[in-house]
Amino acid sequence: MSTKKEIRIGLIGTGLMGRTHSNGYNRMRNFFPELEYTPVLKAVCSRNEEKVRKFADQWGYESIETDWRAVIARDDIDAVDICTPNNTHAEIALAAAAAGKMILCEKPLARTLEEAQTMTDAVEKAGVKNTVWYNYRRVPAVTLAKQIIDSGKLGRIFHYRANFLQDWTISPDVPQGGDATWRLDVDAAGSGVTGDLLAHCIDTAMWLNGGIKDVSAVTETFIKERVHQGTGEVQKVGIDDACLFHCHFDNGSLGLFESTRYARGHKALYTLEINGEHASIRWDLHDMNRLEYFDHSDESIVRGWRSILITDADQPYMKRWWIPGTIIGYEHSFVHQVADFFESLGTGEPCNPTFYDALQTQKVCEAVIDSANTRSWKDTDVQWKG
Amino acid sequence: MSTKKEIRIGLIGTGLMGRTHSNGYNRMRNFFPELEYTPVLKAVCSRNEEKVRKFADQWGYESIETDWRAVIARDDIDAVDICTPNNTHAEIALAAAAAGKMILCEKPLARTLEEAQTMTDAVEKAGVKNTVWYNYRRVPAVTLAKQIIDSGKLGRIFHYRANFLQDWTISPDVPQGGDATWRLDVDAAGSGVTGDLLAHCIDTAMWLNGGIKDVSAVTETFIKERVHQGTGEVQKVGIDDACLFHCHFDNGSLGLFESTRYARGHKALYTLEINGEHASIRWDLHDMNRLEYFDHSDESIVRGWRSILITDADQPYMKRWWIPGTIIGYEHSFVHQVADFFESLGTGEPCNPTFYDALQTQKVCEAVIDSANTRSWKDTDVQWKG
Amino acid sequence: MSTKKEIRIGLIGTGLMGRTHSNGYNRMRNFFPELEYTPVLKAVCSRNEEKVRKFADQWGYESIETDWRAVIARDDIDAVDICTPNNTHAEIALAAAAAGKMILCEKPLARTLEEAQTMTDAVEKAGVKNTVWYNYRRVPAVTLAKQIIDSGKLGRIFHYRANFLQDWTISPDVPQGGDATWRLDVDAAGSGVTGDLLAHCIDTAMWLNGGIKDVSAVTETFIKERVHQGTGEVQKVGIDDACLFHCHFDNGSLGLFESTRYARGHKALYTLEINGEHASIRWDLHDMNRLEYFDHSDESIVRGWRSILITDADQPYMKRWWIPGTIIGYEHSFVHQVADFFESLGTGEPCNPTFYDALQTQKVCEAVIDSANTRSWKDTDVQWKG
Amino acid sequence: MSTKKEIRIGLIGTGLMGRTHSNGYNRMRNFFPELEYTPVLKAVCSRNEEKVRKFADQWGYESIETDWRAVIARDDIDAVDICTPNNTHAEIALAAAAAGKMILCEKPLARTLEEAQTMTDAVEKAGVKNTVWYNYRRVPAVTLAKQIIDSGKLGRIFHYRANFLQDWTISPDVPQGGDATWRLDVDAAGSGVTGDLLAHCIDTAMWLNGGIKDVSAVTETFIKERVHQGTGEVQKVGIDDACLFHCHFDNGSLGLFESTRYARGHKALYTLEINGEHASIRWDLHDMNRLEYFDHSDESIVRGWRSILITDADQPYMKRWWIPGTIIGYEHSFVHQVADFFESLGTGEPCNPTFYDALQTQKVCEAVIDSANTRSWKDTDVQWKG
Repeated sequence: MSTKKEIRIGLIGTGLMGRTHSNGYNRMRNFFPELEYTPVLKAVCSRNEEKVRKFADQWGYESIETDWRAVIARDDIDAVDICTPNNTHAEIALAAAAAGKMILCEKPLARTLEEAQTMTDAVEKAGVKNTVWYNYRRVPAVTLAKQIIDSGKLGRIFHYRANFLQDWTISPDVPQGGDATWRLDVDAAGSGVTGDLLAHCIDTAMWLNGGIKDVSAVTETFIKERVHQGTGEVQKVGIDDACLFHCHFDNGSLGLFESTRYARGHKALYTLEINGEHASIRWDLHDMNRLEYFDHSDESIVRGWRSILITDADQPYMKRWWIPGTIIGYEHSFVHQVADFFESLGTGEPCNPTFYDALQTQKVCEAVIDSANTRSWKDTDVQWKG
Repeated sequence: MSTKKEIRIGLIGTGLMGRTHSNGYNRMRNFFPELEYTPVLKAVCSRNEEKVRKFADQWGYESIETDWRAVIARDDIDAVDICTPNNTHAEIALAAAAAGKMILCEKPLARTLEEAQTMTDAVEKAGVKNTVWYNYRRVPAVTLAKQIIDSGKLGRIFHYRANFLQDWTISPDVPQGGDATWRLDVDAAGSGVTGDLLAHCIDTAMWLNGGIKDVSAVTETFIKERVHQGTGEVQKVGIDDACLFHCHFDNGSLGLFESTRYARGHKALYTLEINGEHASIRWDLHDMNRLEYFDHSDESIVRGWRSILITDADQPYMKRWWIPGTIIGYEHSFVHQVADFFESLGTGEPCNPTFYDALQTQKVCEAVIDSANTRSWKDTDVQWKG
Repeated sequence: MSTKKEIRIGLIGTGLMGRTHSNGYNRMRNFFPELEYTPVLKAVCSRNEEKVRKFADQWGYESIETDWRAVIARDDIDAVDICTPNNTHAEIALAAAAAGKMILCEKPLARTLEEAQTMTDAVEKAGVKNTVWYNYRRVPAVTLAKQIIDSGKLGRIFHYRANFLQDWTISPDVPQGGDATWRLDVDAAGSGVTGDLLAHCIDTAMWLNGGIKDVSAVTETFIKERVHQGTGEVQKVGIDDACLFHCHFDNGSLGLFESTRYARGHKALYTLEINGEHASIRWDLHDMNRLEYFDHSDESIVRGWRSILITDADQPYMKRWWIPGTIIGYEHSFVHQVADFFESLGTGEPCNPTFYDALQTQKVCEAVIDSANTRSWKDTDVQWKG
Repeated sequence: MSTKKEIRIGLIGTGLMGRTHSNGYNRMRNFFPELEYTPVLKAVCSRNEEKVRKFADQWGYESIETDWRAVIARDDIDAVDICTPNNTHAEIALAAAAAGKMILCEKPLARTLEEAQTMTDAVEKAGVKNTVWYNYRRVPAVTLAKQIIDSGKLGRIFHYRANFLQDWTISPDVPQGGDATWRLDVDAAGSGVTGDLLAHCIDTAMWLNGGIKDVSAVTETFIKERVHQGTGEVQKVGIDDACLFHCHFDNGSLGLFESTRYARGHKALYTLEINGEHASIRWDLHDMNRLEYFDHSDESIVRGWRSILITDADQPYMKRWWIPGTIIGYEHSFVHQVADFFESLGTGEPCNPTFYDALQTQKVCEAVIDSANTRSWKDTDVQWKG
């Protein structure tokens, strides 16, 4: 173990994503023991000292900070992991890039396209390693979908559809702002479901099916006013509660996307489907270890959608885990992303999605919001490199 | 039986819908024996004499005609059932109304809004009984969905989504025009999936969730040229192969619709879902005897989507059929529509959807096509009466 | 039509099976128009004159009888269809055979093996056409399962399992005896779930997987006493409420069977599964148009259970019905059996299952009951001809 | 952290279970930070020094041993975790008990009832803490099932059924004996699927539904001879490849169990179902985060099986993990068992299942094998304490 190259992590933010990333770092040694690089949990940062101390103890960080600038200033930090609300991503990333740190940034990259562009320029200029946590690419079933598509089994693609449905903000009593509900505060989040949920769908979609060319969208804010945690006042809600759009992909296929936090009965139902000339694929986060696959070349009388349980060693990432028939969970997508990041340090390849890739997703998000606001089609200007 | 009032049917068209309607008439006596009115299969009409004679023998029609005008001219015909391609609906319906016949017309009502308006005006002016075969309303699970929604169980509605996915025209070798493939010929069909498939989704949607106010759509024709059965020439394809749109309902909810014949793996996957404040409902034609229902008022630790098998006597139409656990099929939706039509003769109520109702669906279809052609939102001018 | 050979049917019994069979006869002309032989609904018989008159009117029978002996005595009856409770099957069948009538008998063939043997001897001696209504063989998905198995795709068979779960007798207030609940009266039914439900499972199992050699069973009667409809008295319940058994098939595979009317939540859940060396098949009556199929020869990374929607023209019976994606129901299994019976009149082949085949099923049922009563393994003495 | 009481673990065995247990210990600090007791990974033992050294490095063990006796002899070991093949459980456990160590033993407790009895006597006499890794009790959906049953929602129980189906030994080329396939060697394993798979089903069944009174079983060995890894010779296979049994529970309900490694298409399909008077429950390991629940008290027209996605904080163990809609995996059941074990150190309660509980399961297993061998019913003599 002494021969491993250590990368000293400074984690900023101790919410849900702070936990999933920390778990990722902690699992590497156990499940990817052969990797040349290894994380060291050097520091974790959050404004609340008591909370961050408890977090550090729970997850094994060596030290704490209460000001993110202190993390970046430290010489003993190689990589900064940004898990804070969206409105802080840009400032932290710019500072980290300037300090020559590697950056692992939570999604969406930023609140706006402008912020995202600045951040991308900064990391590219600084030449620092960078990646964005669009974790669903590393769900084995989704990774397998990518392999199947790349193999050409689907032929010409006609349709791509995805949605991300939740139901946790239906009650008007849910507040906006604050630690638990900053995602409902437009100043902190930048947008509502578009940046929070559709950004995931868009990242996966372009990874699987190439660039999105233009979009036509509609958004809705069902609950117009909510109490703000910060002010205690009832304030106008600035985010999109729901967002629907259709689009053209560069390859000529049609896309259809929907996201909402008002779909009663769905907790986190991220589903995707892609229809090709010869075959189709479906996936659904609630049953994330299954991939459904239809192959028209099967003999006609026994042709049907296959429900593939992704648990075998020849399927992506699964040789790391248990035995056929035994599934993994949500957190494993983050473990895989950590492992791929550390593996990429060895190979020198970028760890996708990079800031550049996430910038393309941001372009789509911005075009979607613009389209909804102007009730018109918008070009995205995406330059997808894949 | 001698006391029943006979309605003498003249069926025009002997394709798939000619068969489903004929089966409907033939089943009434067996499964709805108490109805006061009863159909008599007086005449069936098709241009091919040999074919229509065989059809008459198979389905029990007393006589045949080879010119639809002859059917309308006959005094011994009370009701005209129009099962011909879309481009003939208007002419036949106008003549039938002028002759004072009841009219049962296949969907979509017409190729264009203009035709549909003329037809609706004609039946209203003539005061003849009229109905349109949007059969999916009479699938017991869908009828139950209507009852649940009307009971108020869902509360405020946020979302409605539906799609109708097929895959039978993916091969470029499928021709357009002719008996089997007139649905691919824009002159015969008026439109592609919009009139053929989305019209079903729209009719059900407005029945369940009220009028659609405005739409934003995109269409695509994936295969640009096909051989025409009539001319034998390769000709431009004029229909929409796929159509996607989002919309606002009058009640403030958002709608999302998609239809295509290029979704590999789906034969006739008509699905719908409606999300309310308190409860949600899903349905899918491939498993048409099931309704999925989520009720947020269930105790939280045991709350989940219920898969309701609609086979019991207290569920719509099911006391007519067999025993709990034993399902019915596609054809039964037509049997139910026939029975409801004949029952409405006794009550004097309209048999929904009427031409008026189908005209509203036509307005949405026309707005959808216009929206796609102009890449802009379109108001529908729907006046939904429910 | 005038050229068809008419078979004059005398139906005895007007319960659920009287309805399914009558529907079968009525559908033949519509869906199997080419068959040389055709049924004529000559007479229907039930002890209650008012009821049978109504039934005759509803289903189109030409005449009524209130004594089954009268049906058999009539010269204008070619075939006797026995739909009465089990305790009358033997007497009617023996009389019908003696009168040289064709016999279509509801399942189970008889209450006891002895009765069944006598009946089989009688029809074989008389040389009359005979068949037993084990209708599930004619569900297209089950028929397709047979074709797949016969094709050798499964290889050596290891396991066969089936169950038939209901929940309609859980309440102690359900009576025994009488028109609706004779199945709970051991004198009328012979046995409980063994003859009513497991007999179906056994017939299908032997058709698909060959003879059952020996059995080890357990039965239970959960509700010990119920009011008898006939006497109005609370009486001991003589039937088996539940029956479970395992067995060896002649081919060396293991069988597992279960049936009950106390499985809360299941209306008529008949499921079967067969596991072979190379492939497996599953089916479930609640979703009867689907067949699940697993083929180990599929490429490993995309291998999974296929959900085959049996609606296409190249799948058994389905060219008779509608279009891909549109399903059929429970009643169609009886239509198919009627059609196969009439087709077999033309070919001169037996219409399976014959009395002989049903006798083999009876042997298994008797061995099962014996095994349960004696708490020991029993040989069945089945001679399966397939 | 310094205030926690440390329990020094000595792990014996580095196979699959060695990994799942080690993962469990490593996750405790992250997900159960409040527990008073904490594991310290003091030593791991395996005969192959290179392999055990690598394992120790991967999982964070402080030291290694190559002889299990050395582990037990060490003063700095508080608890021995036995993850070796079944034929070594008894000897190690007896030694550990004699040395006053806590014991966590993999299932099945032993190869035979006699061994299991001796082991149970030993730990009870020594008064050492003991538990057996029947991990499926700690799958949140299964734990929830227990809560629902204990709440009385099901009422009187009629049926319990479970199976555990695999397909990994179908090929005759799979050897017996050795590290990877000792489960096929009767000397190492004691039995085949009965001890390996049915033991899980039996433990869960008795936990949920009480003691099993008597059993009637059948077993089969489909492949009669396999190469032995140890000798390199083709030898007779002594294990049961498949085992089926029915039984009576103490509460009067009927049980049905099946296990096999020859069910093509099933990797590790452990399913269970329990039917009560008022409600029923189903679960399936392949979709382990879902529980299906049918409640007859639901309004009849909207009554159906509920698919409950177990991901919310008010469901067992789930407040430890992520957010609603995001699932966990197989390994988490072991994490939960570790946590419950350490929590029980604080409370002084036993950590179920104890050796005593596992002994009862062993009684059923032994009766099952005896029953199959003698083709007769066997009493189990289970004294279930629950």
